[in-house]
Amino acid sequence: MEKLNVIKVGGAVVEDTASLALLLDQFAFLDGAKVLVHGGGRRATKVAASLGLESKMVGGRRITDSDMLSVVTMVYGGLVNKTVVAKLQALGVNAIGLTGADMDIIRSHKRPLKKVKMDDGHEEMVDFGYVGDVDKADREALRGLLTNGIVPVIAPLTHDGQGSMLNTNADTMASTVAKALAPLYDVTLTFCFEMPGVMSNPEDKDTVIRTIDAASYSKLKADGTVSGGMIPKLDNAFEAISQGVARVVITHFSDIAAKNGTTIV
Amino acid sequence: MEKLNVIKVGGAVVEDTASLALLLDQFAFLDGAKVLVHGGGRRATKVAASLGLESKMVGGRRITDSDMLSVVTMVYGGLVNKTVVAKLQALGVNAIGLTGADMDIIRSHKRPLKKVKMDDGHEEMVDFGYVGDVDKADREALRGLLTNGIVPVIAPLTHDGQGSMLNTNADTMASTVAKALAPLYDVTLTFCFEMPGVMSNPEDKDTVIRTIDAASYSKLKADGTVSGGMIPKLDNAFEAISQGVARVVITHFSDIAAKNGTTIV
Repeated sequence: MEKLNVIKVGGAVVEDTASLALLLDQFAFLDGAKVLVHGGGRRATKVAASLGLESKMVGGRRITDSDMLSVVTMVYGGLVNKTVVAKLQALGVNAIGLTGADMDIIRSHKRPLKKVKMDDGHEEMVDFGYVGDVDKADREALRGLLTNGIVPVIAPLTHDGQGSMLNTNADTMASTVAKALAPLYDVTLTFCFEMPGVMSNPEDKDTVIRTIDAASYSKLKADGTVSGGMIPKLDNAFEAISQGVARVVITHFSDIAAKNGTTIV
Repeated sequence: MEKLNVIKVGGAVVEDTASLALLLDQFAFLDGAKVLVHGGGRRATKVAASLGLESKMVGGRRITDSDMLSVVTMVYGGLVNKTVVAKLQALGVNAIGLTGADMDIIRSHKRPLKKVKMDDGHEEMVDFGYVGDVDKADREALRGLLTNGIVPVIAPLTHDGQGSMLNTNADTMASTVAKALAPLYDVTLTFCFEMPGVMSNPEDKDTVIRTIDAASYSKLKADGTVSGGMIPKLDNAFEAISQGVARVVITHFSDIAAKNGTTIV
């Protein structure tokens, strides 16, 4: 089976010129079929603030009213996406910027009101607004690009098939693409961020856990080694593996070949 | 030869919800291969103003400094482009949003300082900033999409191949695409806007000139029937025809089949 790398990079990396350059140099160097999925939340928050819009987050997710949907469509689909595409083209990578709406690659539905546990512990019904929960991805449309040597650069936006764009979490976009292509490729899904991997002691970068499987994950959760924001990331990783993704890697953005990161199998 | 429609629609139409809906309904109905090229200048001016940036225009063209490049990349490549793509998908059109950077379809270079005749008649060297003058279009990349039934929706942005996006006039984008595909298709290039066509009396919508050729154009220019902003549009049209585009149509956005517009041959 041909190899495919799906690399997800968060907003903090894409918004720092030097970090982005370092990441894209490595990405350009990766052999074979590849997809880059990016975030952009920090930039969206800044642009929204400049426009006088307050960013409201619940459980780390952005409440997206109509004005905020315009902001994320501009920032993710325009500014961040095209900046990355232009830089990859300069590195000889035949990139194409996409949202879920383009060629209908990822369709979603507007999230219904959802019960969410708030920071203070009480539960509340939350209207996330124009946020899309993914329904389906078009494997063949993506394969059509990849077999022509084209490299999709995907912004965290989907559409509802009824004319509206929707804001969708970038981790979810990456795992959606990885799962959709798993029947066709040997897929490595890599989440890269500012940490070297999953660490048994978050204060000590030398304590990266090299491999996590379902059994060790249960233990790490039970003894509290893995907690907070890492849990949804790892749950997401195991779900991708259960759907055919060969491996999920969590690593530093300067190490996307993951010589030192955490591999989930 | 297979027919191809390249439709260019200006900012005033795409920014009015009802006008855009009317245009897209007609566009969805067009048979065969098609491309939509859009503007977005008015929206860019509004977003720039909300961000505290003043839009400076010289001869109808936007001076694009680094901050303004971010604005047009957001607005043209993100907000306007993806809004149109999502709406076309809802109409059953398999649209894909593109800038010149995506698949390297249109490459340009940063415009050097240029002598421009100002409104008061004196000439001045003007630095337009991050504005791209087109060098080349990738005919095969566009054909690859069209033969798969994919409909490119093109924002007025290009790239320089060295990592920078550039702001490029939407009329120029449309004629670049039309000319690039002229060897492969019977191309109709349609500019649609708020007027019914080229009128012999601009006050009277019943005076649309149905056909203009090189000879009648010379006369219309000499007697002043055609003047002002219409001259670069028509020069552009004749240049497209000289490079193989079968016909250029100037028509109202409610009439893209051009039952009542002006056809340049």
